[in-house]
Amino acid sequence: MAELTLHPDRLFPAEPATRDIARRLYGAVKDLPIISPHGHTDPAWFDENQPFEDASSLLIIPDHYVFRMLFSQGVKLEDLGIPRVDGGPTEGDHRAIWRRFAENYYLFRGTPSRMWLDWVFAEMFGMTEILGADNADQYYDTIGAALATDGFRPRALFERFGIEAIATTESALDPLPHHRAIRSSGWQGKIVTTYRPDAVVDPDYEGFADNLQQLGEITGEDVGTWAGYLSAHRNRRQYFREVGGATATDHGHPTAATADLSSADAEKLYAKVRLGDFTPAEAELFRGQMLTEMARMSIEDGMVLQIHPGAHRNHNDMVMRTFGRDKGADIPTQTDYVGALQPLLGRYGSDPALTIVIFTLDEDAYSRELAPLAGHYPALKLGPPWWFHDSPEGMRRFRERATETAGFYNTVGFNDDTRAFLSIPARHDVARRMDCAFLARLVAEHRLPEDEAQEVAHALTYGLVKQAYKL
Amino acid sequence: MAELTLHPDRLFPAEPATRDIARRLYGAVKDLPIISPHGHTDPAWFDENQPFEDASSLLIIPDHYVFRMLFSQGVKLEDLGIPRVDGGPTEGDHRAIWRRFAENYYLFRGTPSRMWLDWVFAEMFGMTEILGADNADQYYDTIGAALATDGFRPRALFERFGIEAIATTESALDPLPHHRAIRSSGWQGKIVTTYRPDAVVDPDYEGFADNLQQLGEITGEDVGTWAGYLSAHRNRRQYFREVGGATATDHGHPTAATADLSSADAEKLYAKVRLGDFTPAEAELFRGQMLTEMARMSIEDGMVLQIHPGAHRNHNDMVMRTFGRDKGADIPTQTDYVGALQPLLGRYGSDPALTIVIFTLDEDAYSRELAPLAGHYPALKLGPPWWFHDSPEGMRRFRERATETAGFYNTVGFNDDTRAFLSIPARHDVARRMDCAFLARLVAEHRLPEDEAQEVAHALTYGLVKQAYKL
Amino acid sequence: MAELTLHPDRLFPAEPATRDIARRLYGAVKDLPIISPHGHTDPAWFDENQPFEDASSLLIIPDHYVFRMLFSQGVKLEDLGIPRVDGGPTEGDHRAIWRRFAENYYLFRGTPSRMWLDWVFAEMFGMTEILGADNADQYYDTIGAALATDGFRPRALFERFGIEAIATTESALDPLPHHRAIRSSGWQGKIVTTYRPDAVVDPDYEGFADNLQQLGEITGEDVGTWAGYLSAHRNRRQYFREVGGATATDHGHPTAATADLSSADAEKLYAKVRLGDFTPAEAELFRGQMLTEMARMSIEDGMVLQIHPGAHRNHNDMVMRTFGRDKGADIPTQTDYVGALQPLLGRYGSDPALTIVIFTLDEDAYSRELAPLAGHYPALKLGPPWWFHDSPEGMRRFRERATETAGFYNTVGFNDDTRAFLSIPARHDVARRMDCAFLARLVAEHRLPEDEAQEVAHALTYGLVKQAYKL
Repeated sequence: MAELTLHPDRLFPAEPATRDIARRLYGAVKDLPIISPHGHTDPAWFDENQPFEDASSLLIIPDHYVFRMLFSQGVKLEDLGIPRVDGGPTEGDHRAIWRRFAENYYLFRGTPSRMWLDWVFAEMFGMTEILGADNADQYYDTIGAALATDGFRPRALFERFGIEAIATTESALDPLPHHRAIRSSGWQGKIVTTYRPDAVVDPDYEGFADNLQQLGEITGEDVGTWAGYLSAHRNRRQYFREVGGATATDHGHPTAATADLSSADAEKLYAKVRLGDFTPAEAELFRGQMLTEMARMSIEDGMVLQIHPGAHRNHNDMVMRTFGRDKGADIPTQTDYVGALQPLLGRYGSDPALTIVIFTLDEDAYSRELAPLAGHYPALKLGPPWWFHDSPEGMRRFRERATETAGFYNTVGFNDDTRAFLSIPARHDVARRMDCAFLARLVAEHRLPEDEAQEVAHALTYGLVKQAYKL
Repeated sequence: MAELTLHPDRLFPAEPATRDIARRLYGAVKDLPIISPHGHTDPAWFDENQPFEDASSLLIIPDHYVFRMLFSQGVKLEDLGIPRVDGGPTEGDHRAIWRRFAENYYLFRGTPSRMWLDWVFAEMFGMTEILGADNADQYYDTIGAALATDGFRPRALFERFGIEAIATTESALDPLPHHRAIRSSGWQGKIVTTYRPDAVVDPDYEGFADNLQQLGEITGEDVGTWAGYLSAHRNRRQYFREVGGATATDHGHPTAATADLSSADAEKLYAKVRLGDFTPAEAELFRGQMLTEMARMSIEDGMVLQIHPGAHRNHNDMVMRTFGRDKGADIPTQTDYVGALQPLLGRYGSDPALTIVIFTLDEDAYSRELAPLAGHYPALKLGPPWWFHDSPEGMRRFRERATETAGFYNTVGFNDDTRAFLSIPARHDVARRMDCAFLARLVAEHRLPEDEAQEVAHALTYGLVKQAYKL
Repeated sequence: MAELTLHPDRLFPAEPATRDIARRLYGAVKDLPIISPHGHTDPAWFDENQPFEDASSLLIIPDHYVFRMLFSQGVKLEDLGIPRVDGGPTEGDHRAIWRRFAENYYLFRGTPSRMWLDWVFAEMFGMTEILGADNADQYYDTIGAALATDGFRPRALFERFGIEAIATTESALDPLPHHRAIRSSGWQGKIVTTYRPDAVVDPDYEGFADNLQQLGEITGEDVGTWAGYLSAHRNRRQYFREVGGATATDHGHPTAATADLSSADAEKLYAKVRLGDFTPAEAELFRGQMLTEMARMSIEDGMVLQIHPGAHRNHNDMVMRTFGRDKGADIPTQTDYVGALQPLLGRYGSDPALTIVIFTLDEDAYSRELAPLAGHYPALKLGPPWWFHDSPEGMRRFRERATETAGFYNTVGFNDDTRAFLSIPARHDVARRMDCAFLARLVAEHRLPEDEAQEVAHALTYGLVKQAYKL
């Protein structure tokens, strides 16, 4: 098999003078601590600190980037051990799953998954050959052996990765036992939660009525009224701050729609959605109104408002029925921001005390809508390239399209948005390299002096994210 | 006049190390046979093997890329010999047409037409000066003389071009006389047809009712019923496979809309469109349903389903009235894929036995919709950049935007989609060069080892197209 | 503070061979006269030739590119001296405004504003250090002192900048006193106006009814009838040509919608909008019809028709209420051209005697819609990247996306669209550099011979704009 190497110049432009600049810029930021303000690692890992099981359960079964690619080329999800909703049979032999993955590893050529995985293989497990059918077992055994050692337990990895702070994401109804336990454990790792209220904000959410009832019970508020419902949110936000150290909320809506209803109209609308008597347009309106309500509360309590719109969730009915949500079948859709965000921005967008971080899966919006909006409204900042666009080309397009209108300082650094814990350093490293590559081009083309580019590189890596998320 | 040269490094990145890599990658694929799985060459050429007439009738009058550019700068289509629908007078002096073209050749600077034409001039006709007003006659005479020789007859060119297989496109009603004759001629050139049923699938098609009747007559099926209509399609598909060697169908719809109606609803809808009693929405629904029917038949008979949506046909009424269809006035439109393809993909998209090749004229869909869809659904593959985007920059954008999510292996190689026979090698050469240029960047930036890039280059040039189209 | 330098190679590709080509191409066009066919300089400057006041009133207060960036980062518009609609208090100390700007100058890193400003500082005022808090006063004093000298009066600057012709933009109702005075002054500077009739064409325009009445009074036409209204436009167009030297009209509509109503329907529609009794759709229809009317008049009188669609004006209600229009809160929106322009193009688009210059804020339309339209219709030409996209990356995307289908010769050179007089040479220089950088890549990749690239560079800089705008 071919040699596996992580070239020190990877992702830098090939042109020698530009590459030299990129090396210098990167050299000064590569070892900065990782701040991961938005992601989906499991807080139980850091609480219980149990070893990860094996290569397949760590790297394949939970990673929709990985298994969707295999699925797209005809591998059945059952054969990758993806659990069926009905509990029906799936591959239980994790070594067999790994072999299937290994023999199809060539499919990932040119994808960010390949870069992240190669980094994990080389850097974390010391592999020296590229993964393939021939060395699948060697990989599986080596990884399995390493995972059994103390150095690969979650807390040890957290420290080894140089993570200064990491945010997890929990439902508004979550009692946050792991965050509580981590804080009382004496371990110093900074693990904070994020308030994610979709289950009690989105009338289309599975079990919405039950969720509301539970929200009332947890908070002791009367969620039968609009005022009580809002109080319940305030209550939970406070709980998330106090128990989980939350500094941000997160909202994963199908669109970026916001609303600015009168209190009376909002009350009436809430009465309808609470009783399940609503049209799709009313559900949309309610979700939109709740973003504005959340902004209002953010001004009160200082939490950052994150909006992640634009995914058509669970596009493949068969996969949804058989395997459930989040199985690689979410597809981005065209997303309007200019009209959609106007109600919220008209109400609170000019308040510098508020920070809204907006993400997009529709790259066309970068130069047309998002950069002009962020380059005007004090409250609005641009989140980094997200999900499908968390990739070298995606990052390049983001900087090329957003910077000239929004500048660098209306962006908030990188976030990895991942539950693939081992890939976190690799992802942040890609972002640092790509930002330095972009800056190096500006320097090489005499569009920015190198000392200023160095300051920007530091801000993009560390300063802006810390400031925006108050971490 | 200035010297005409085809530089061996054309289209490769200028950065020397990257260019060296591109040269090596390209060196190993440049002489691979051409597989042209989708195009519009005339099968009569290969059947009758008659010489082409002259430079203007070969290179200008039939090429809408060429005459639309001249038209856009004020040259009248009549003066280029484009036939009028009413048979009215147009320029009959082909040498005069050629002179008009030659004196305006500078208009093509920076366009792919210029690259293709220069290749044809230099490589096929040995011209050594760039075309202009001064050497127009010399060009015209040299080309005319060459065309009269046996080496420029269609079969000789086919062999000289190294074409392993080429697909033409015929209407569902076509009796395929030329394909039949080619097969019985003993000539070994592989010329296959493609089943293009728009005329009997699209209720808005000119003469739809007559076409249906003709379909019934040809197949002996009762197209007065939905079942009979579907049987007629099955019959013709079989005919196209047996007589014309077809491995694929092709569908040129205004949008990517698909539908998945119940059999009863489909039957009712067919009854309406058959009688000409339908709304625009019903026409759209019927076209969409027929894509799903075609997918069902493809699973039965193994034919590849190609969807070419998104052109606003015949945008210029004056040109349509005076000169008819396909005169350079088709304009791409914004095209939705996520919602549009869901009915079809929900029904058959998870079946690895089916191959759907989807094309787009809306490049924004590459990263937002098409790569995520192709990177998930087993049945869906991405066709190459098409029509306006069959160009160096268009190809670059395709790889940059699609690869990170779909990988290379959910794409199907290049197709030229042309009736400009002489430009076929030039077009495939541009695609090979641009793919190698893209891969060279990945190698130079240490994102892919060179040996793997070489394998990918081979797949993009030869393996994937052969496999996807079963040629 | 760091040294301020304008590197002679700025904006050129870093790859040495390509850079050498860019240098040669640029060397031959850099000193060509500036033709500025569309912009918003104040004709009073050139008439009265009074000195500019101070650095803040020249460079900050009137420049929405500058103050919107500061506003987006929390600086209050009042603190930048932006006048309030209600005449309420704003910062009156221009030195204090300048200091605020200086300490936030780092926010502009990576933006075109930074490039333009650095050019102004270095080239016009001889500054040698980059602006910052420490040298704010030195800057303010140096600039103030220079502005007081005769060499910095408008006419002197016009001559120093090598401007061959500049177009201003005036409302259809403007009596053009300054243009008249300039012409009778004996000064040779070519300052022409542009006919901008939005105030009497857009039913949604503030004071539309009064504007119509005024139009009738000025022209002596009976604007109570459709025929009289059209005659009034003809009258004003003639006035603008005769008194102001106008060669073009300009239309800033929310969309690109056009219409081609019968004369009777247009008359009825005019009756409704004249009386203020219209729906939003009717307002849109009227604006669209007026573009077609303007095209008809352009064919009669030879004026170029410019369409600037796609901005959502005054997105921020608070800013609109407090500070009024044009305060950096206009946001681009997704814009359709294919359907929108069809009525107009169907009517007059095939007439080579007409020149329509279309602009876009929606870059996605370049390759999908605008290049195919301009690459077909004789009347249609593409305006340069505009407003948010008047930037290095914006210019690069324009050439990369538009050239392969529209060629170079369906574009019309650069225009600066600015009221920031001092930045005009910097903006034209950026355009020249970026065009040469793009052409240099084509040459370096052997896609265009250098001598042809040189001809194209000249056309993009000088020939095409002069020809398109008849200046």
